[in-house]
Amino acid sequence: MQNPRVNQALIVDLYELTMAAGYFDNSLNIDATFEMFIRDLPLNRSFLVSAGLYQVVEYLKHLKFEDEEIEYLRKLPPFKHVSNDFFDYLRQFEFRGDVWAIPEGQIFFPGEPLLRVTAPIIEAQIIETYVLSMLNFQTMVASKSARVAQAARIDEKDRGVMEFGSRRAHGPEASVLAARASYIAGCMGTSNVMAGKKFDIPVYGTAAHSWTMAFDSETAAFEAYHRVFPESTILLIDTYDVKEGAKNALKLNKKFQGVRIDSGDLLEYSKIVRKILDDNDYKDAIIVASGDLDEFKIKALVENNAPINSFGVGTKMVTSEDAPSLGGIYKLVEIERDDKIQYKSKFSDEKATYPGKKQVYRIVDDNGNYLKDVIGLVKDQIPEKHKTLLIKVINKGKLVYESPNLKTIRNNFIEHLKKLNDACKRFENPETYPVLYSKNIQQLFNELKKREI
Amino acid sequence: MQNPRVNQALIVDLYELTMAAGYFDNSLNIDATFEMFIRDLPLNRSFLVSAGLYQVVEYLKHLKFEDEEIEYLRKLPPFKHVSNDFFDYLRQFEFRGDVWAIPEGQIFFPGEPLLRVTAPIIEAQIIETYVLSMLNFQTMVASKSARVAQAARIDEKDRGVMEFGSRRAHGPEASVLAARASYIAGCMGTSNVMAGKKFDIPVYGTAAHSWTMAFDSETAAFEAYHRVFPESTILLIDTYDVKEGAKNALKLNKKFQGVRIDSGDLLEYSKIVRKILDDNDYKDAIIVASGDLDEFKIKALVENNAPINSFGVGTKMVTSEDAPSLGGIYKLVEIERDDKIQYKSKFSDEKATYPGKKQVYRIVDDNGNYLKDVIGLVKDQIPEKHKTLLIKVINKGKLVYESPNLKTIRNNFIEHLKKLNDACKRFENPETYPVLYSKNIQQLFNELKKREI
Repeated sequence: MQNPRVNQALIVDLYELTMAAGYFDNSLNIDATFEMFIRDLPLNRSFLVSAGLYQVVEYLKHLKFEDEEIEYLRKLPPFKHVSNDFFDYLRQFEFRGDVWAIPEGQIFFPGEPLLRVTAPIIEAQIIETYVLSMLNFQTMVASKSARVAQAARIDEKDRGVMEFGSRRAHGPEASVLAARASYIAGCMGTSNVMAGKKFDIPVYGTAAHSWTMAFDSETAAFEAYHRVFPESTILLIDTYDVKEGAKNALKLNKKFQGVRIDSGDLLEYSKIVRKILDDNDYKDAIIVASGDLDEFKIKALVENNAPINSFGVGTKMVTSEDAPSLGGIYKLVEIERDDKIQYKSKFSDEKATYPGKKQVYRIVDDNGNYLKDVIGLVKDQIPEKHKTLLIKVINKGKLVYESPNLKTIRNNFIEHLKKLNDACKRFENPETYPVLYSKNIQQLFNELKKREI
Repeated sequence: MQNPRVNQALIVDLYELTMAAGYFDNSLNIDATFEMFIRDLPLNRSFLVSAGLYQVVEYLKHLKFEDEEIEYLRKLPPFKHVSNDFFDYLRQFEFRGDVWAIPEGQIFFPGEPLLRVTAPIIEAQIIETYVLSMLNFQTMVASKSARVAQAARIDEKDRGVMEFGSRRAHGPEASVLAARASYIAGCMGTSNVMAGKKFDIPVYGTAAHSWTMAFDSETAAFEAYHRVFPESTILLIDTYDVKEGAKNALKLNKKFQGVRIDSGDLLEYSKIVRKILDDNDYKDAIIVASGDLDEFKIKALVENNAPINSFGVGTKMVTSEDAPSLGGIYKLVEIERDDKIQYKSKFSDEKATYPGKKQVYRIVDDNGNYLKDVIGLVKDQIPEKHKTLLIKVINKGKLVYESPNLKTIRNNFIEHLKKLNDACKRFENPETYPVLYSKNIQQLFNELKKREI
């Protein structure tokens, strides 16, 4: 990317920095392990799709505090009694810890660490806000988009979903990240040009109603468009009247790629328009549908055989409208001081946190199909055939993992999804995919709990 | 801000650029006026709060296409037949139009243009995606946050709301923008340090549960914190047990600023903790409450006299959880070609768009209280005492408006809110604030409709 990096060190909750100063000035030299995980499935979801790791790694690689930022912090009232040494420390700060993570495009479930960080406690703490905001958002959008793509049955026919939501995303950056996350989860591309350029995602889009309205007639607008884009013209035919629009498209008397319908009863209109096109030797012209779509509407259209080739989906996908936040948290699970390990847990019923550095063991059958997951300690021995989900991404501050390109991530996701059984992917009342804790981790948790009481 | 600007020209839906190329290669030299407005109030809202104009102006000021971006576009398949002249045009592109807008922190309503752009049609079209994504998002968050601040009755007591939602915002940039928008709408500050530095917003935050868990005991953790932050210590007392936590705070035997409760029954706990503090000569220590709060929970706490001094509100405010997108649209209302004006309208019942360049006339009484709004044409003469909401921001590409600083915007909002009558601000079943269309605009609309039929 040609753009200069904006320094993101201050995208952090103040308390991460006050804690950092507190650890520093108390000379608390301990290594801490934090894990990021999601407690519960969002409404309507039966699985989660990992996304956002690439941006987290970029952030960690470049994380540093500039002089101007340090001067700002130094002048904040709470930092009045903080030592100069702390600010000197910040000036030379870099992330030197270890990071393990589930690669992007993987299917995972609540309780499973998406990311595990082991580092001097200040380093592990300071990154919390950014890491959560990035992983929560992209994972939320990918998990929603997977449902939209599934509803469109992108695997059965040459049908696709285009992400069209930039104008309703939560700001310009969110629009780019949402395009990325939805592509990972099976969308065919996006309308967002920045996302296209930055992540090599196919970009789509032709014209809006304002194009048609800027000309004296619909036919004049269609002709003018086709003149400039003879091979890629998708005519938006619903500015005035869909049927008339379809007929005006025929008046072009030239091959065009297709038409788009953006309003009204998409099932009825798509059938009418398909017939008009077919009856007039435009069998190859595709029909694109858009307008307030989500997975439920798309499912109904597909099940009723609406002759729609691709869906443009915006607002409801990029804001994950039925579940517009993902509650990922970042919890302390272990500290190490003078080579002595202390496990950390929380015991309250709803908010239990299991102790220790974890790995997710996915038990598979001989064909690689997913049978169940076991959340265990990293040192657990799992006798059944399995794969481990978390891989090492950063070792003592050095990147040891090369992120695949986005197309590969998307392909990986599509392969993973095939291995999850259909009952767990059902739209309504899906079966719960079995996720268990290993004996060792249960035992450790119970021991710590006993000691607590 | 010390950071280099990231060029944002490509944060645009592809179709804005194909239309631009289409207008260019068809030599369609017309001036177009687009207006951005919201059709309907989001769920649970009775008014909207304008926010995001500052970022839109910054974007327009700096909008240009870099060589690398132009090369990317040129290679996209749809642009195959587009003339070289168009790319030369893009290379020297700058925004030279006029912009009128409702200033930030104003109360406004559906149908009222928040922004009006008049420019050569390509310029007016290309900016649509960015403008919508920015204004939709910040206005959505400000409109939600206004309710949260209102529920906390920030005007009656020394009570405040702190924005704590960065980790659940839709990515890092959204976290900064959400902090800004919620401050405009009455929050006292944010945990987001970048927002604090960039916009001069007060920043808040002390410590997380992980701080307490990193020490061998809660008292050790409290002492260590107080050592470094003697004047600003807010002790998080619910890591293990709230009552014990409050008692451990007393064991400090030193003045501290307050305590924070982040879980459980905040009404009951705040009362218990207040009593413990009061009984032990800590009458000045404040109580901060947080944990999954929104305006409804805060309203219930305040109405039940929970002794809470400030609320930390996150997820539900920064994602506007009950209405997580704002459907602002950007519509063509007028074009001018060879000094001839054509008005543009849409006539469908649900999606009517009124024609012409508009102004919002707010009719006020002698004390400045808001009586009703009239959406009229710019040339309308309104006999009643009124103020006009849209002001000129950019004139032929030159900035002619200086945005107030954020504190002033926030103060303006608080003053505006006082002028809206209580019935329209009620939480449940609010009265609808009257918004009418002027006779002239109705007449124009009806004439155009007749001509259409």
